[in-house]
Formats: sequence, C-alpha cells, structure tokens
Amino acid sequence: MKRTVFALVAIAALTGVAAYMPPASGQGDGEAAPIYGIKIPEGYRDWRLISVNHLAGGSVKQVRAQLGNDIAIKAFQEGKLPFPDGAIIAALHWNESLSNENNKVLADGFPGAGLESFVAGSAVNVQFMVKNAEKYAASGGWGYADFTNGKPGNEALHKTCFPCHEPAKDRDYVFTRYAR
Amino acid sequence: MKRTVFALVAIAALTGVAAYMPPASGQGDGEAAPIYGIKIPEGYRDWRLISVNHLAGGSVKQVRAQLGNDIAIKAFQEGKLPFPDGAIIAALHWNESLSNENNKVLADGFPGAGLESFVAGSAVNVQFMVKNAEKYAASGGWGYADFTNGKPGNEALHKTCFPCHEPAKDRDYVFTRYAR
Repeated sequence: MKRTVFALVAIAALTGVAAYMPPASGQGDGEAAPIYGIKIPEGYRDWRLISVNHLAGGSVKQVRAQLGNDIAIKAFQEGKLPFPDGAIIAALHWNESLSNENNKVLADGFPGAGLESFVAGSAVNVQFMVKNAEKYAASGGWGYADFTNGKPGNEALHKTCFPCHEPAKDRDYVFTRYAR
Repeated sequence: MKRTVFALVAIAALTGVAAYMPPASGQGDGEAAPIYGIKIPEGYRDWRLISVNHLAGGSVKQVRAQLGNDIAIKAFQEGKLPFPDGAIIAALHWNESLSNENNKVLADGFPGAGLESFVAGSAVNVQFMVKNAEKYAASGGWGYADFTNGKPGNEALHKTCFPCHEPAKDRDYVFTRYAR
C-alpha cells in the first residue's frame, strides 16, 4: 500500500502537465516546498547547463535539462564529490512535442532518413536539489523541492524524493553527469 | 546528383561520432570553419540554455541542447527578431545513451510505467550560428560552423547549412524556440 501510494504520488509528479512560465528573473511566487522549505531559486533559468536527457514510457515523453548554480557547476566541471554546501541543481522537465516544422526540413535535407525532431513543449515541472550537509543531514545532505506551475507539490510527494535518489549515494545522490 | 551529395554530406554531419571534450575554457584549437571563417567561440559550453530536444531516425538517436551567448539569450527572452549582430547560437549534439542506472531507479519508483531514460553519451558535433548582417548578407545574415571532435567540417558540409535553415526565414533562420 505504502509502495503504491509512493508510486502514484511519484507518477503524479512525473506527468503533471502545466505551462509554467517563470518571470524573466526566474523568481517564483515565494511559496516554499514542504519538508525542506525550499523556494524557487531566483534566476535559475539562467543557470548553466549540466546535461540533457529524455524520458519515455507509456504516455510520458519528456525532454529534460539539468542546470546548476555556480557552486554546482564548478563541482561538476572539477569532478569533485561530495558537492559543497550551497550547490543547487535544477531539473527542468518539458513534455516533448513532435516538431512538424523541423521534420519538414529534416525530410528535405536528409531524404529517406526518417528523422523526427522532438522539441520542448509545455513545462511539466521543475525540481531542485539544494546542498546543505548539516541542515539536510537526514536526507543525504540535500533538500528537495518540486514545483508544478510555480506551486510546490505536497508533503507526500516530497517524501518520495530522497528514497528515489538514495541509489546514487556513491555520487552524492546526484544522477546527472556533466555532459562534455 | 547535387541533392544526393547534399544529403550525404549532411548525413555525415549528423552522424559523425566523436568524443569531443572541450577544455574548461571552451576554447577550441583555433581552426576556422570554411566559407564563414568561424572558430569555436571561447567559453560557449558555459552559455545559457535556449532549449533542448532529441532527434530520432534509423541509427540516429541524439539528445541536443541549444545555448546562446548573452546577446542571443536577451533576444530570445525578449522575443526580438531579427537577432542583433553579435548573437551566437551553439547547438550541442550528443549520442543518446540508455541509462541503466536511471532505469533501475525508475522501475523502482514508478513500477509498471516502463520508463526509460536516455542521457547524453558521446559528443556528435557542435554547431554555431553567428549573426553579422553585413558580413554574412549572402546567407541571411548568419555565418555557420560545424565542428566534430574540435575540427571544422569541410566546405561541402558548410554549403549545406544555409539551404537547410532557409525555411525558418520568418524566424530569422533560427529553428529553436526559447523553452519556458
């Protein structure tokens, strides 16, 4: 039962569809996520790129980017673990959208290749990991926050963050590797 | 015949597999791409994110990020066209790699969802568009450059850039839209 609730809540987080458009400053509405008390960091959309990926399965089709603040990027580029206090990683998830305009160009430029381009469509959610070894000692030194449409998810959702990241303990609970 | 050569050259550009690791500064080896005379811009890997996408078709499976220098990002964020001189857009292409370590976590956290995570693997190539309305008047005001493993592609390859971007004339020849 507990496992089912965990999965359902996690799936809700994964598939929530919303068109969240942060203001240019990147500052959210100031509401903090439960448990960890994390608000949307100002300017996160302008942080540097760690890597990109895409996720597929059933109705879930997302393109994703991970960005880092200066402290996080420095640690990634230098390959230093654990991450120092103050490091913040942002995970931006969008529903992927088949781009007909791109596909027309691809069909013309690469005839017969059957290429399809999937671009970032509506935003799904934005997640943050905030490193503070002392404050978040109970969850591996990281605080977690998940926002959909600028609003934080509930407590049940945030209880799923750390268990999900635990398998990456040997990389300080961070799944993403820096893309060269 | 001409079309076939165009397609073959373009496919070569698309599928070239190499593990290009730019130095931390992002500065390349200084060799300029033909026709447009563009070198790898210093520090491009630290530019801000425009959007992400993925490309699929046959053996081509890539995750991609588009980054912009400050001039380009400002124009994207303000929705201003045409892009001002000095704008540079970088397109980073990686072979996607199925992440078994991510998939294990996904299978545990989202049982039955069949989720698969595709992350950035080896680098394919890096492309640049450099805006200079006067210098590059013959190609819509943009110069183009394509580097694989830090080395620019040949002239035949670079002849394919502008024809491919022409269909996006109404967006100043830029395919990528800023991801909110």
